[in-house]
Amino acid sequence: MESRSLLRLFCLVLAALVFLLAHSYRSYVHVPNSSFTIRPLLNGRQRPSSYESNVPLHPLDPLTIQEINTARSILLSYHLFSSSPSSLVIHSLVLQEPDKSVVLSWRPGQPLPPRRASAVVRLRTSAYSLTIDLSTKNITSNPLPSSGYPTMTIDDMISATWAPLSDPKFNASILARGVRLSDLACLPISSGWFGPQDEHRRLIKVQCYSAEGTANFYMRPIEGLTVLLDLDTKQVIDITDVTPDVPIPKSSGTDYRFDAVKPQANPKTKPLNPISIEQPAGPSFEIVNGHVVHWAGWEFHLKPDPRAGVVVSAVRVTDPETGERRRVMYKGFASELFVPYMDPTDAWYFKTYMDAGEYGFGLQAMPLVPLNDCPRNAQYMDGIFVAADGRPYVRSNMVCVFESYGGDIAWRHSECPITGMEIREARPKVTLVARMAASVANYDYIVDWEFQTDGLIRVKVGLSGILMVKGTPYMNMNQVGKNEEMYGTLLSENVVGVIHDHYITFHLDLDVDGADNSFVKVMLAREETSKGESPRMSYLKATRHVAKSEKEAQVKLSLYQPSELHVVNPSKLTRVGNPAGYKLVPAGTAANLMDPQDPPQLRGAFTNNQVWVTPYNKSEVWAGGLFVYQSNGEDTLAVWSERDRSIENKDIVLWYTLGFHHIPCQEDFPIMPTVFSSFDLKPVNFFESNPILKTPPNFEKDLPVCNEVTASA
Amino acid sequence: MESRSLLRLFCLVLAALVFLLAHSYRSYVHVPNSSFTIRPLLNGRQRPSSYESNVPLHPLDPLTIQEINTARSILLSYHLFSSSPSSLVIHSLVLQEPDKSVVLSWRPGQPLPPRRASAVVRLRTSAYSLTIDLSTKNITSNPLPSSGYPTMTIDDMISATWAPLSDPKFNASILARGVRLSDLACLPISSGWFGPQDEHRRLIKVQCYSAEGTANFYMRPIEGLTVLLDLDTKQVIDITDVTPDVPIPKSSGTDYRFDAVKPQANPKTKPLNPISIEQPAGPSFEIVNGHVVHWAGWEFHLKPDPRAGVVVSAVRVTDPETGERRRVMYKGFASELFVPYMDPTDAWYFKTYMDAGEYGFGLQAMPLVPLNDCPRNAQYMDGIFVAADGRPYVRSNMVCVFESYGGDIAWRHSECPITGMEIREARPKVTLVARMAASVANYDYIVDWEFQTDGLIRVKVGLSGILMVKGTPYMNMNQVGKNEEMYGTLLSENVVGVIHDHYITFHLDLDVDGADNSFVKVMLAREETSKGESPRMSYLKATRHVAKSEKEAQVKLSLYQPSELHVVNPSKLTRVGNPAGYKLVPAGTAANLMDPQDPPQLRGAFTNNQVWVTPYNKSEVWAGGLFVYQSNGEDTLAVWSERDRSIENKDIVLWYTLGFHHIPCQEDFPIMPTVFSSFDLKPVNFFESNPILKTPPNFEKDLPVCNEVTASA
Repeated sequence: MESRSLLRLFCLVLAALVFLLAHSYRSYVHVPNSSFTIRPLLNGRQRPSSYESNVPLHPLDPLTIQEINTARSILLSYHLFSSSPSSLVIHSLVLQEPDKSVVLSWRPGQPLPPRRASAVVRLRTSAYSLTIDLSTKNITSNPLPSSGYPTMTIDDMISATWAPLSDPKFNASILARGVRLSDLACLPISSGWFGPQDEHRRLIKVQCYSAEGTANFYMRPIEGLTVLLDLDTKQVIDITDVTPDVPIPKSSGTDYRFDAVKPQANPKTKPLNPISIEQPAGPSFEIVNGHVVHWAGWEFHLKPDPRAGVVVSAVRVTDPETGERRRVMYKGFASELFVPYMDPTDAWYFKTYMDAGEYGFGLQAMPLVPLNDCPRNAQYMDGIFVAADGRPYVRSNMVCVFESYGGDIAWRHSECPITGMEIREARPKVTLVARMAASVANYDYIVDWEFQTDGLIRVKVGLSGILMVKGTPYMNMNQVGKNEEMYGTLLSENVVGVIHDHYITFHLDLDVDGADNSFVKVMLAREETSKGESPRMSYLKATRHVAKSEKEAQVKLSLYQPSELHVVNPSKLTRVGNPAGYKLVPAGTAANLMDPQDPPQLRGAFTNNQVWVTPYNKSEVWAGGLFVYQSNGEDTLAVWSERDRSIENKDIVLWYTLGFHHIPCQEDFPIMPTVFSSFDLKPVNFFESNPILKTPPNFEKDLPVCNEVTASA
Repeated sequence: MESRSLLRLFCLVLAALVFLLAHSYRSYVHVPNSSFTIRPLLNGRQRPSSYESNVPLHPLDPLTIQEINTARSILLSYHLFSSSPSSLVIHSLVLQEPDKSVVLSWRPGQPLPPRRASAVVRLRTSAYSLTIDLSTKNITSNPLPSSGYPTMTIDDMISATWAPLSDPKFNASILARGVRLSDLACLPISSGWFGPQDEHRRLIKVQCYSAEGTANFYMRPIEGLTVLLDLDTKQVIDITDVTPDVPIPKSSGTDYRFDAVKPQANPKTKPLNPISIEQPAGPSFEIVNGHVVHWAGWEFHLKPDPRAGVVVSAVRVTDPETGERRRVMYKGFASELFVPYMDPTDAWYFKTYMDAGEYGFGLQAMPLVPLNDCPRNAQYMDGIFVAADGRPYVRSNMVCVFESYGGDIAWRHSECPITGMEIREARPKVTLVARMAASVANYDYIVDWEFQTDGLIRVKVGLSGILMVKGTPYMNMNQVGKNEEMYGTLLSENVVGVIHDHYITFHLDLDVDGADNSFVKVMLAREETSKGESPRMSYLKATRHVAKSEKEAQVKLSLYQPSELHVVNPSKLTRVGNPAGYKLVPAGTAANLMDPQDPPQLRGAFTNNQVWVTPYNKSEVWAGGLFVYQSNGEDTLAVWSERDRSIENKDIVLWYTLGFHHIPCQEDFPIMPTVFSSFDLKPVNFFESNPILKTPPNFEKDLPVCNEVTASA
């Protein structure tokens, strides 16, 4: 053996050790079958209660530790798997929710409907979608999608990151760039789908970074080096190294950790005085039985989900006139994310992520940081997820719930000098936020479900975290040719922030006062007056168009064909005869402009419109299809909607895609200030009148007395 | 005299008395010339200092009490007015700001540049635009616009409301509807402009309501009765009464005052526990010399303005890398509001309000309500305005400034299970808000200038207050014919909320690192790849287009031709060579869809595009023209922009129109929950990197200790 080969072997072993060590740090822990003692101790606020003895208390409650263990046992002894249980890979094991009618007719105190688990598993190269009855221990098999693979397991992702190290050519590339293998940090990048040639096996691409000198390795790409792996065999299929001469950007200025950055050096910028949302009498919300949130007339079921992140269910609001709890939404969640990067070159074209279906939006949601991710008055909810071997683990502090008050006004009126009346009425605006934050490798998504006292639900998505950047030989824009394609912005020496989009498609199963609803486009259009009718030539007229079938409900938003988009209950009229409704109110968003025939866009076709409405169908949950990984786009919302089913006065589901175009700028380096957008679900003739008319104002006597800070900084 | 005539006379006198009494309540008070003792005592938080001895301390400081008195004396003794000083009407008397270059070169401690006042006055039917030098006592006359009249005085508005009572036909109409004259509440409605026939005199329309049984008279219209008045002579020119049979809607359920509504009757909706933003170590901002706000590296001048509401000037931000104070914006304010109603019938077609130029957006901004309009940690700023007789008065608590923290995240990143690194970094998002709220009769506009630590400025507009509604014979939608035009929504028995738009056009004189800037449209468009180039068929490519002249900078926003809109300094490049810039980031907005040739739209043509850029011109301040009242649209932003002047690498002004379509719904009755939208001015390659990278997180030890509330409710 030559000395170079020896060195290589040494480095390989070293690197493997480093990675194994790193994995031991991973922030989920296995919950042993017999006793539940290990809990992650991250970021404090651990509650002492054990989950081991938990029992489900609501039909929608996630599987408990016990139920997961039961389901696992049933699976492992299932005739198809019992001969080689250790080869069975659990890609997903979650509650199979009972039928909607069963959930809605259930009342607290009644026995729960039969508990069933839904499992997606693979044995060698075969996938199975199974329903496990936890009482009868029966397993039934469900049909599989025609293309695609299940969401990766965390083990899939981790093992992919170190598999390239078994390849000498790969290691040589790394060493040739002067990177120690021990400084390598690699990412598993879903390979997308670009035609049928690769459908027969699970593929993944791996790209790497140098973590030398920074925790923010994302800013130090080893540009152009891409390893194509078989995700099952971990075999290296191909290595491309298209830009070996592009330098690795410097580490200085990239770390963002508080311990690593120097304190604010500039005395002109004083640190801010402490500020806090305080509620000395405690919060006004209650989380009953672990999952049912009650606040200001709202009631909803809230739970973590490994794929969707959080799921909000059975949302009802109290009518202040009658005291009746009225149904608003059966279920709302982020159904899929689509993140295409805008660089068609070899090392980038395939970056067309589906963060929920490929990586698991909930699996990537890490513990929230108390006082910083959520304010001091927050309460936290843990997630119970399932590892590839079927064992449960706890993701602590995955969701937080808090009341927010930032000084906004719920309603106000003063009488002005014209009338001279002495009226000054104003009411503060307090909301309830349920939050999660997913870190899908570099990017962080903050998802807020915000409930207002006036019946409005705001869904807010924040983008933060770290850009996916591209190495470049350029140090300054003056080195770049006039017509040279950069595919992004030069953010720092040798660093290009590549242009990309984010689309988050929400499944919104509104049930306004019941299941049978209609989708109404209230079109606002110019009407010209006839000659002599009026000194005015024009005005805007609203006309209501009830969508009869799905295609009429495919909406591309436009400022110039404005519509209000209502989901109404045609059978439930207000006192003066308007149908009770909720409207979808978009805020800032972005439309998908890619070629609809482009392979990634076939898969992401659910973003071709901002709005779709489908009839409720238990199997139409994930906008990109049940199996998204390497799917060919034959099972997306866009395909379902083309069937043009009837949607009038039916149980319907509204889908909204919130989009962002992101042309990076230097302020996004080395970590991005959060960008937010949102959309609202707003009552429209749902209440007879302003539901917060009788809300009292704040009085000084009710507010807290706060003293000095607990300790001087 | 018949008994009916006697009754009429009695009622008239009674009504006049009631109105005079009501006017004595008006919430501004005159400050006597010799001593300053009377202060409004509304809504607490009065500061003890007197304004009488105030002197200006910054070139942009508003006129002081003393300066107003001086200017008034100069005006009254001016040769044109000295013979009949009591007939002189002051429509506006404000600081004439020094030239931009003078303001920018001034440094604290230096003597102020010469103080001048800008006055718009009328003597009988002649208007004058004058500049008054307060030291030399010189008056110079400025050219007048070719059409239109100055902003109404408060006296104009008030006197118009009771003028109809002098007309027996009017009173008969009122009495015929069963309304006591003492229950009348009337509004002065700007009559718009519908052709040259009425340009020779100031006209106003008056419509009335019954205030019987409610403070919310707006919900009780005396529908169809319109009085056309000469605003100068107060002579009734015409009375139309087109729908005498439409009933006046009932009063029950319309009052919104806390004292008038019953407390929350429904025990299922518990009142919320107290919640408050607390800063026991005090705020982190400072208002120096009454108007210069310092916070988190920001510095800006803030002042109330009778027409614009608030004006934010000389905005600079500290570069955290260099400590340098860098210029961002010279001046920002709401330049005009345009509120066309969408009903072309006789009693409604003319409702095409210009709230700033017709009524005075600042004149209608009433004292903010502590604890409810602004949180407990707010500080307040008073306005000093000028009455029609030239005397100053104080509008207390007109603006508030506070730090907001609602639990949002400034930036965050966690490492996910893929990499296994134990990183959990998050920073709370604290902002500084400067707020005013104008009540232009029924409607309330909340305008927030929100400054973020990351260099972003968010301008947020909230709409609340009370709808302008229309009486209707209908009690229920089932009485309405299928094709019958309602022009709005039936909100309650006999009440239609009429469809309308709101457009708020902001003047944004950005000076990014200096005056000479360019406007760049960064167009994002689909690029198809060539055959064989890539497995991808398409991607989005960004191309920069520098607008050479004004027409290239007229932008109609679209989701399908997306552009980032940058104002850059082409001479100021970052380290890696990007031009320093700020971008305009719209959020939800509405486009104006009226016929561009419609008379109101000729006047509101500044809303034909969402974005315009003009070269800086001292005289182009008000988007609808200097004199908006009854103007014919010959002096608007749209007209100026048609000159297509050069705007590249020049001192330029960005104009943005934030729009709202409002189709009322029952929840808007009897008072509207606030609807917000906003736009952002966001640094784009302005900083070398994330300017809040080094911000520390919150630590428990720094947060306040809060005890029980001060008293139990």
